[in-house]
Amino acid sequence: MSITKYGLFGKLKALPGQGQALADFLLEAARLLDTASGCQLYLVSTDVTDADTIWVTEVWDTQEDHDRSLQAPAIRELIGRAMPLLAERPEPGMTVNVLGGKGLA
Amino acid sequence: MSITKYGLFGKLKALPGQGQALADFLLEAARLLDTASGCQLYLVSTDVTDADTIWVTEVWDTQEDHDRSLQAPAIRELIGRAMPLLAERPEPGMTVNVLGGKGLA
Repeated sequence: MSITKYGLFGKLKALPGQGQALADFLLEAARLLDTASGCQLYLVSTDVTDADTIWVTEVWDTQEDHDRSLQAPAIRELIGRAMPLLAERPEPGMTVNVLGGKGLA
Repeated sequence: MSITKYGLFGKLKALPGQGQALADFLLEAARLLDTASGCQLYLVSTDVTDADTIWVTEVWDTQEDHDRSLQAPAIRELIGRAMPLLAERPEPGMTVNVLGGKGLA
């Protein structure tokens, strides 16, 4: 994998005790993204120190691929359903240039 | 992917102008980890706001797999060569429970 890809590390804070419920929504999003063009990685993780802090680690071929995916009705509908579980407004994710490594197609 | 995996998000700060050189070492490490058992993901990224800040995003089947990999002579030798490029002592990476998603085997 040589060409730089678009990476996005995002953190979401769930209402107390809602971490797993929020993660389930995000795992559903990952399934929806199975066919999303340019989506190389969409991982859902919980912070070992706080089960209500959820990390989403994304890698896309381009930012455009990522931005386009947010327009898909099924994704927008899912986001709508997940929002009530959030304890605070999500901060913008951290953007990185993914240079390469092991584990991506 | 259902079983929780061991995730480690680490940040390394290179000396001014040494970000790419440090990233190259880490990409070499990724190649060495190709055969490391339990290593599902080892991505090297640069922060879009600071090319001397390098992110390493790792996913392992278990923490033991990860810790064992640090004993490999080739990895230890590589770490030794990379250390002089660091501007500061690396902070411990952030540990997460990777629940699943898209992109891992």
